[in-house]
Amino acid sequence: MSDPDCLFCNIVAGNIPSTKVYEDDETYAFMDIAPAAEGHTVVVPKTHTKDVLEADPAVYASTAKAAQAVARRAVDVLQADGVNVLNNCGPAAWQTVFHLHFHVIPRYTDKSKDSLTLPWVPHPGDLDAIRAIGEKLAF
Amino acid sequence: MSDPDCLFCNIVAGNIPSTKVYEDDETYAFMDIAPAAEGHTVVVPKTHTKDVLEADPAVYASTAKAAQAVARRAVDVLQADGVNVLNNCGPAAWQTVFHLHFHVIPRYTDKSKDSLTLPWVPHPGDLDAIRAIGEKLAF
Repeated sequence: MSDPDCLFCNIVAGNIPSTKVYEDDETYAFMDIAPAAEGHTVVVPKTHTKDVLEADPAVYASTAKAAQAVARRAVDVLQADGVNVLNNCGPAAWQTVFHLHFHVIPRYTDKSKDSLTLPWVPHPGDLDAIRAIGEKLAF
Repeated sequence: MSDPDCLFCNIVAGNIPSTKVYEDDETYAFMDIAPAAEGHTVVVPKTHTKDVLEADPAVYASTAKAAQAVARRAVDVLQADGVNVLNNCGPAAWQTVFHLHFHVIPRYTDKSKDSLTLPWVPHPGDLDAIRAIGEKLAF
């Protein structure tokens, strides 16, 4: 299924041009035109689905698998020093295109090529509060 | 396979205590003790594997699927406004424990509960340069 109003559906369909990096029956990967770092690629399922909450688990898994393949290739080809795979769901989590996607962002120790900052400052939490939330979350 | 020197292998084995959120034959999820936001969970494969580059694709996919299940549950139970699923590979990409893991970070519009910042400032890239890198990356 394709949503005619969706940017990524139109990219998958070829109605909007993109620089293709990878494609299989279920997924499509293309260069991000506002890259966070050299080689920033976006990996999407071909079928329209909004986000991690809505996606069929098999679709989520196959998209993640394609993201892995792209991550490996990017590190190899671009001689990156690391890579992030990031999936954002909802405006509160920085999602701006509402078609499920993984950002694959090669990372470099050379700071002239990489200006990303860790999105949070790690510090120990309150263990009792964490345990209480974990008990609510537990399956 | 388990690595006796690996923090997450020891958590999976129960040698180091954790607040368990989810478990199946292949994966284990537990509360992060230095949470970026309320409900921050870490999802790992039970078998030791270092990162996205080294992981068997089936293991990467099953870990992502478990991360999806945790993300859905976290948004539901904690009434979060969004969620990030993040996999870091290599010190250059903020990996600090070298056992593959996905961070599942519920997100909140209430800024008293959520102080994460987008790790990069989106701005249009040089399209010719992006195309040239895409051609190198393409499978």
